[in-house]
Amino acid sequence: MLITIDGGDGSGKGKQIDFLRAWLANRQLDYVFLRDPGDTDLGEAVRDILLHRNDLAICPKTELALFMASRAQLVHEKIKPALENGQVVLVDRYLLSTVVYQGYAVGSTDEEIEWIWRMGKYLAGGIMPAITFVLDCPSQVAFERINRTKDRMESKGSDFHRRVAEGYRQAVSDWGKYGSGEVYLIDATLSPDEVFAEIRSVLEDRVAR
Amino acid sequence: MLITIDGGDGSGKGKQIDFLRAWLANRQLDYVFLRDPGDTDLGEAVRDILLHRNDLAICPKTELALFMASRAQLVHEKIKPALENGQVVLVDRYLLSTVVYQGYAVGSTDEEIEWIWRMGKYLAGGIMPAITFVLDCPSQVAFERINRTKDRMESKGSDFHRRVAEGYRQAVSDWGKYGSGEVYLIDATLSPDEVFAEIRSVLEDRVAR
Repeated sequence: MLITIDGGDGSGKGKQIDFLRAWLANRQLDYVFLRDPGDTDLGEAVRDILLHRNDLAICPKTELALFMASRAQLVHEKIKPALENGQVVLVDRYLLSTVVYQGYAVGSTDEEIEWIWRMGKYLAGGIMPAITFVLDCPSQVAFERINRTKDRMESKGSDFHRRVAEGYRQAVSDWGKYGSGEVYLIDATLSPDEVFAEIRSVLEDRVAR
Repeated sequence: MLITIDGGDGSGKGKQIDFLRAWLANRQLDYVFLRDPGDTDLGEAVRDILLHRNDLAICPKTELALFMASRAQLVHEKIKPALENGQVVLVDRYLLSTVVYQGYAVGSTDEEIEWIWRMGKYLAGGIMPAITFVLDCPSQVAFERINRTKDRMESKGSDFHRRVAEGYRQAVSDWGKYGSGEVYLIDATLSPDEVFAEIRSVLEDRVAR
């Protein structure tokens, strides 16, 4: 079973991932944790270009293809083998992030959004999450939370991050058209414990045996 | 006008590009020459990963997305502005290379080939060549011609290169279904001068004024 957690920068994703991993370990579920982009040698090389090479001009379609390249390798090397092995796979971000950051947030048309979903599914070999958790957080709240040095995506400005937050909501409301599996939009302005209580109730219902 | 020259490694493409550039310069046509992948900062970073990082595992779908990423940036930064400026743009390889190397040569289905064309056109912002020259060269002949150190693509083995040569022929015969603009399949076992005579006759007819 593939589970992904997604949401804008500063939505508290890191903390919820810690809780999720602890929950999976506690239940003695055999799981692997991965992050997208990254976690393969190729993925790390691409992640470095995408997040840290501020010297490189990268247009939105290029960004889109680079995120998809990294994901294709992650699916091939790690996700597919783990799923075939019967493991639970927890991924920090997945195709939805690309749809939001390189689609909704840059003002893509409906037709382009559909394209990104379709291309993304093709390049991920059709492997899509059974459960997607989306942390919903207004960009003002999120922005105040990020006080470390921002990476290339995070430093795109408050207007971009407002469109990211709106993009997640729109993507969830369009889920029936393009999404795969179940999606849960969770209010991330609540306390970390309250957010995880919602995630846990889904896990108890869908993952625990 | 966008012109591209394509063909397997060892098909004599470099020599024909020299001839083409000399012809364009002689006619005092304002042209730019570019190579795909490459020729932008991002493109060179991706080209380096694709051709020289033999330490990285790269699966076919990842390769596909990386070539498309590099091309998206090349179109955005160089090709589109040059075309808008009324210049002739000559490109060493373009989407057809991706269709052949990451499609036909790895045994993609018809549906996948169609996907690669469609995705590729989308990521190239719909900018496709008016004229495509394809140098047709049996892989045995081509292979004997490459006596320098082979890059990552070139060192994929003779069976792969045979499928590349067949892929180009198949792509040209399927041109009506997916291709854009005019395509010319040229026998590259002829002498360089004879090959260029064929290219020149197309140029005289279509490009010269």
